[in-house]
Amino acid sequence: MKKSAPRNAFYAQSGGVSAVINASACGVIETALRSKKIGKVYAGRHGIIGALTEDLIDCGRESPAVIRGLKYTPAGAFGSARFKLKGLAENRAEYERLIEVFRAHDIGYFFYNGGNDSMDTALKVSQLGASLGYPITCVGVPKTVDNDLPHTDCCPGFGSVAKYVAVSTREAALDVASMARTSTKVFVMEVMGRHAGWIAAAAGLAGKGEREPPHIILLPEVPFDQQRFLARVKQCVTDCGYCVIVVSEGAAYPDGRFLADAGTKDAFGHTQLGGVAPVVANMVREAHGYKYHWAVADYLQRAARHIASKVDVEQAYAVGKAAVELGIKGVNAVMPTIVRKAQRPYRWGIGHVPLAEVANKEKKLPPDYIRADGFGITEAARRYLEPLVAGEAYPPYKNGLPDYVHIRGVPVRRRLKTGFKI
Amino acid sequence: MKKSAPRNAFYAQSGGVSAVINASACGVIETALRSKKIGKVYAGRHGIIGALTEDLIDCGRESPAVIRGLKYTPAGAFGSARFKLKGLAENRAEYERLIEVFRAHDIGYFFYNGGNDSMDTALKVSQLGASLGYPITCVGVPKTVDNDLPHTDCCPGFGSVAKYVAVSTREAALDVASMARTSTKVFVMEVMGRHAGWIAAAAGLAGKGEREPPHIILLPEVPFDQQRFLARVKQCVTDCGYCVIVVSEGAAYPDGRFLADAGTKDAFGHTQLGGVAPVVANMVREAHGYKYHWAVADYLQRAARHIASKVDVEQAYAVGKAAVELGIKGVNAVMPTIVRKAQRPYRWGIGHVPLAEVANKEKKLPPDYIRADGFGITEAARRYLEPLVAGEAYPPYKNGLPDYVHIRGVPVRRRLKTGFKI
Repeated sequence: MKKSAPRNAFYAQSGGVSAVINASACGVIETALRSKKIGKVYAGRHGIIGALTEDLIDCGRESPAVIRGLKYTPAGAFGSARFKLKGLAENRAEYERLIEVFRAHDIGYFFYNGGNDSMDTALKVSQLGASLGYPITCVGVPKTVDNDLPHTDCCPGFGSVAKYVAVSTREAALDVASMARTSTKVFVMEVMGRHAGWIAAAAGLAGKGEREPPHIILLPEVPFDQQRFLARVKQCVTDCGYCVIVVSEGAAYPDGRFLADAGTKDAFGHTQLGGVAPVVANMVREAHGYKYHWAVADYLQRAARHIASKVDVEQAYAVGKAAVELGIKGVNAVMPTIVRKAQRPYRWGIGHVPLAEVANKEKKLPPDYIRADGFGITEAARRYLEPLVAGEAYPPYKNGLPDYVHIRGVPVRRRLKTGFKI
Repeated sequence: MKKSAPRNAFYAQSGGVSAVINASACGVIETALRSKKIGKVYAGRHGIIGALTEDLIDCGRESPAVIRGLKYTPAGAFGSARFKLKGLAENRAEYERLIEVFRAHDIGYFFYNGGNDSMDTALKVSQLGASLGYPITCVGVPKTVDNDLPHTDCCPGFGSVAKYVAVSTREAALDVASMARTSTKVFVMEVMGRHAGWIAAAAGLAGKGEREPPHIILLPEVPFDQQRFLARVKQCVTDCGYCVIVVSEGAAYPDGRFLADAGTKDAFGHTQLGGVAPVVANMVREAHGYKYHWAVADYLQRAARHIASKVDVEQAYAVGKAAVELGIKGVNAVMPTIVRKAQRPYRWGIGHVPLAEVANKEKKLPPDYIRADGFGITEAARRYLEPLVAGEAYPPYKNGLPDYVHIRGVPVRRRLKTGFKI
């Protein structure tokens, strides 16, 4: 009985990157390269765009040390993309092109590493077998710093940004406390999370109770009440001498308008984009005249591999590995999940869920994680968050800087004569 | 022959704090507590204000573990102050009050931990013996993230912020590189340094040459040429696919106007304070339309003890220790300095310099550290900077967060009936 040659695998990174998405890549690639059921392991350069343009990277031609090094290298080593496939009815050409490329390279496994939108793309690809007659096993690999995927206890990428934000809040708060007597009394730090307050909530780990910083967290889940906020700032400066505020970029007025869209104009009269921290800081200055400082962590927070959570790195690797194990068992259209098995000591395992149940869905901060006054987190939130930031997983250093790896990115020879316009 | 009781020591933190100013405190306090030539060791609560208001902390009543823990705790554990003593002629009352408090507590040693302004205060206090007949030995302890004190190879506090900035630039650049194909093409990071570009220059350690990020550094020392800058951004995006810009808060137009004062108004028509990063990012958008992100590190950078430079921590401790050793030898009106003894491998030692030679003076980035095009650093700068960010000195962690110490801050019993209004 002649066995057919194993089919090849395709891996791609999608959406905003994180400190540990490459750790998932490492889990996928190491596991796939070791598997006898998988032939070649290819990655798309810049995600799904690499598939559409037949721009594939041969992972087998990277040194094992570089693949191993992905575990401690932040951002998307293969390039990511913000590119959402439309529905089959709307853009059949893209799906036909995908099949053309997959067929040319005998791709039988599709591992797609991303967030909500990406799980939707993965779901659509998983249906190619049924819809367009091309058999493929498709497994999503969860990744999002926003922590808003449903059916998984947490999302790889979140634990590390949570740790960064909690550490930075604790450190900056010590700075403000030192200076408050004669200088800065209010410090505002802006963090990511346009729709869900998970990242801002993680800042709450920096202190306990209302007297410890951060004194105020502004969450997207809690409609912003300017008067109550300003009163609380004043109370806090009076009681504690200073006030540390962490604001989510998604903080919004009751009518849904983002605080960041507060009508700030630049010199040319254009609405100034981005930056809720300066808006909040100016608001405090207008009302109370306190000296303030503000910070916008932006990409620093999600790229901060130097202060990644060990648990997060391990989970990121594990979901990558599990995706391949599911794939070679022929389990199609699923996403591995993190399952919380015990609280103290924290134990976790891997489960999986149909892609259809996670695609395009968002998990917000549950009400019982938000303190009654809306400005902080509860003990329940603390119990949930604490294990996710546990442990340090320092990268190696060279000359004082993290020695991150770079892939060679050896391209797979093109087999198609046609190109594809993105 | 009866020996007189040893006189007491006063230590205070001054000006903006840093990730390692407490390491200097640790050096001062441990050395002073061990010395038989020094009686009690007191610290001013909120710097010199603590002296003026007779608000003294008894360092001898802190546990040795807490004093040791200061070595890994950022910011000013005793409280700092932005408070500059005027000249004796202008405000004799302050000096008379200082002497009143010092006499009441038999303070014979004054250790003042700060930057340029603070060395000026220390100098004035050192002259109290001659000017007002109160004998005191006064030694400055250098501290400034700005690295702009003259006569010392570097300033404790700088190496750690340099490391933070270089690490963050490297990490964020990997993020932007991942995203650039379909999303963010330009990333702007704002760092401290209102008058000197040392911190911005340190970002240059993240990459080598014009093709590696940071592609553009905007220094206060190089007058900003908008046209040349915008042309370079475009060239960079064309050549590399993306552009990482690090801008010093002190970057300025040829007429000296800060870029940050670019006429941005808030909703009420007031000039918006601070934030050169959004100004630069908007400038790029206006000209080229590239998608951008920007970050303002602000206090996060100077409080980031979690990624402190080991060399910096050791030097911060050493200048504290040296200050006390100079003091007990009766060397008045000096500041310990860091002396670079060898380049590769880097070796350093401690020297000292009269306070009169450092007070109120600023050391800018020398011209040979600035690349000919004004947008980067030279090999000479790299040779200077590299040893200062070397080595990691991680704090201990508990539940995923740095376990920083807090002083008890036991107050010294007041001996004066009079208060003092600041």
